[in-house]
Parts: sequence; C-alpha cells; structure tokens
Amino acid sequence: MLQKNACLLVIGNEILSGRTQDANTRVLARALNAQGIRLLEVRVIPDIEDHIIRTVTECRERFDVIFTCGGIGPTHDDITAECIAKAMGVPLLRHEPTFQKLETIMGKEKFNAARQRMAMLPEGATPIENAISAAPGFSIGNVHVMAGVPSIFAAMVDSLVPQMEKGPPLTSVSWHAAGLKEGDFADDLRRLQEQFPGIDLGSYPYGLTNGTTGTALVAKGYDASAVKSAGSLLHDLIMAHGREPISGDPPHKA
Amino acid sequence: MLQKNACLLVIGNEILSGRTQDANTRVLARALNAQGIRLLEVRVIPDIEDHIIRTVTECRERFDVIFTCGGIGPTHDDITAECIAKAMGVPLLRHEPTFQKLETIMGKEKFNAARQRMAMLPEGATPIENAISAAPGFSIGNVHVMAGVPSIFAAMVDSLVPQMEKGPPLTSVSWHAAGLKEGDFADDLRRLQEQFPGIDLGSYPYGLTNGTTGTALVAKGYDASAVKSAGSLLHDLIMAHGREPISGDPPHKA
Repeated sequence: MLQKNACLLVIGNEILSGRTQDANTRVLARALNAQGIRLLEVRVIPDIEDHIIRTVTECRERFDVIFTCGGIGPTHDDITAECIAKAMGVPLLRHEPTFQKLETIMGKEKFNAARQRMAMLPEGATPIENAISAAPGFSIGNVHVMAGVPSIFAAMVDSLVPQMEKGPPLTSVSWHAAGLKEGDFADDLRRLQEQFPGIDLGSYPYGLTNGTTGTALVAKGYDASAVKSAGSLLHDLIMAHGREPISGDPPHKA
Repeated sequence: MLQKNACLLVIGNEILSGRTQDANTRVLARALNAQGIRLLEVRVIPDIEDHIIRTVTECRERFDVIFTCGGIGPTHDDITAECIAKAMGVPLLRHEPTFQKLETIMGKEKFNAARQRMAMLPEGATPIENAISAAPGFSIGNVHVMAGVPSIFAAMVDSLVPQMEKGPPLTSVSWHAAGLKEGDFADDLRRLQEQFPGIDLGSYPYGLTNGTTGTALVAKGYDASAVKSAGSLLHDLIMAHGREPISGDPPHKA
C-alpha cells in the first residue's frame, strides 16, 4: 500500500499581512494522519491570479492530492474557482444545483450578482457537502477547493477526507520527561535514528504553564513493530539520562 | 522606491503533522509591514534534505528576500544550515565566534558533538544576534535563517528586520459594522476596487465573543491619499447599507 502525499494551499492576503492566524493547517493535518495520507507541504499565497495559477500548476505535478482554502466567497478578491479553472484548462460554468441551493437559502432578493458568482464552478467539478453552510466547496480531479473560514473548512474536511482512499496507518509512541534538554541526548538520538532509518524520531522541547520545562521524544512511522521497538529505546534513553519517562505528550506545548 | 517582496520557509515536520501551530508567520508579517516589505508567500516544508534544497533554490529566484525558521537546533533532524550551504554551493564550516560563544554559555562539559554542530555555518554567513538566546541564526546573501521556537524567532526578527532597507510605507484605513454581510455589498465593493486599481480593498467577516457578527472593510496601499479617499468611500458604503460605521478593526476576529 503506497502512501499518498498532499499539499495545502492557503489562499488569502489576510494571512500574509499578519491580520489573521491560519487555523486550517492543523485541522487538515490531523484528518490526513488518521487517513494515512501525508501532508508534505503547505503554501500560503496571495489573492493574485498569476500566483494562484502558477502554484496550482506546480503543486499538481508534485503532489498526489491538493487542498485549497480561501477565496470562494462573494467578493472581488474571491478568485479561487476561476484560477483553478484556468490552471486546469476548463471553462467556469454556472453549476445549476449549487445555484438553486444558494438561491433557496438566501432568498431571491438577496441572491445578487456577487452571490451568484459563487455558483460558478470549473466544468466537471463536484460539490463538497458540509454540515454547517452553503459555501460552494468543490472537487475536481486531484484538487479539493474549500472555504477559508475555519468552522466551514473543518466541516468540509469532515465530509471529504474520511471518504478518500486510506493509506497505511501511521503509528507513534511518545515519552516525555521534565528537565531533559535536547542537546543532552542529541548524539544518542542520532545513533538511534541511524538504527531505525524507516522511522521518524523527533524531539520537542516544551514549557508548561507551571514553569516546568522538558522534552518529548516521539517515534513515528508505518511499521508498527519498529515504532514500538524504537519507542521502548526512547524510554530507556530517558532513563539513562536519570529522568523519569512519562508516557504520551506533555499536557501543554511550548 | 521599489517594494521588495519576501518569502518565509517554515521548516519542520511538527507543523505538517498538526502537532504544533505555526506562530511565526504573523510575527514576521507585521515586522515586514512596518518596514515596507511585502510577505508574498509562506511555505511549510518537512525536514527532508532534497525538499529543503529545492525549495530554497526556487524561492531565491522568485523572491527578493528569504527567511527561514526551524531546524537549527542540535538534533539529527536539524539540517537547515547544511541544506542552505548545499543550495548556495558553499561549504559548511565551523564558525569560530559562534563556537566560542556556545562553548562559553554551555560550559565545556555540556558542549558535546551534537551541540558543536550548531556552530557549523555556511561559508560567508553572518550571525543574527538576538537578545534572549545563543541560538545560531545567520544571514547569507538574501537568505536569513532563524530559530523555530517562537520567542527566539521573534527576538531574531526584532534584531534583523528593522536594519533592512525600508520600502515605501503601507497605509491602511479600516471601518467595520455589526450586521453587515459580505454578500450584501460585494457588487459595490467590486466597483470600488475597479475605481482604485492600485489599492487593495478587502472585506473580513467577524464574530465577537458576545455573539455579534459583522464585517470589516479595509483599504490598504502605498498611495496614502488614494487609501484615504477609498477609505472614506468604504465609510459611505456602510452608511448606504443602513449600518453605523465604526473606525478601525473589530476588537476580536472570527
């Protein structure tokens, strides 16, 4: 079973200007982990047509699956759908079921020209349903176009990702200990990493709100028995440094 | 005065796995805004040598200035400095002042092989000083390599960005109003945008913790008098929709 990789394009000037904090990467990353798909890159790009088209074109060549968020609302800077159509070389057409649905929800009077634009989808697109809004997300080929608003993005991820083909399940083992410093055991960890080339070993310093600092050690990979072996050696490494290993992640992260 | 653009590379599996939330984009974006430099793209990439080298090489061609964060600690997955050296075709050498500084701070006994690696910088690199740690950030050409830990990243941004050449100052005017919905005035806003092609007009729906929802309208650009004119038309647009325009941004963002 081959693992697929994915890329997320976060489209919007408001992230790049520092106005808004991206909250969608984490939600997608976790849903993909559960599905056995690896999020391998995220790009945050501005509402500029050339920039979006070039990025979509490049990323479709490099990654198995592309997700986007942002730019599907009614305003002039919501240009994601038309950029996707151009990048894929298909026309932008009025998607009749989406048009009807939006008109019903908003009422004829409020369904003005700006809002009608939201029903223009690339030819061949399939809407992504979501439980909480009528926002017109859609899938076309390996590209999945979603809303930028975090609650709607999360609802679209919930309806889309669990339907995708499952990859091999990722397993992980975590141990952490107070007082441990990355640099104290980095040489040992490097040797351990050489011993388990197929497993990702990571170390993450943390600081708790009560002032305790320490480091978490994590083994992660697709070979469950190798992850288990590496995890028990991480436990022993913490013991060897005179600390008490605690199973799992620390309650708060730095 | 030409405006320079910038790209941030966030290097680290822990963001892509959903373990850690990026906090550095916003800090850099705001510092660059103040300096008149535009953050035009952010890429989050994994701790994989080929991926880092390819990304650095591409982005150096496309953007005026590159910032990186992450991967400069003592562990085996901290490979940013060696990847930058490879991307730029220079050797990685022991940087004597950095070596001495780290040894003094950590003490000879704790300054083990893993920590000594932190003093290996690309030939020609200049350290980025920061007020709160000895973490070995450095600049080489148009590439600025910084720590991933948010407090250290922010300290490095503070010491580096205000020293960079200033671009034209960005000015902005914001108005917001409760009860306003993006789709209600998107057609008017589009016409306004056509009238001010050099100014960025944006609309940002918000929800306050007390349950109030509304939209903020923002005019932003480098021509201060055009921004002012566009801003006063945004004010009038809100009035025309029967809402009370309030100056500035809403207190909380959705």
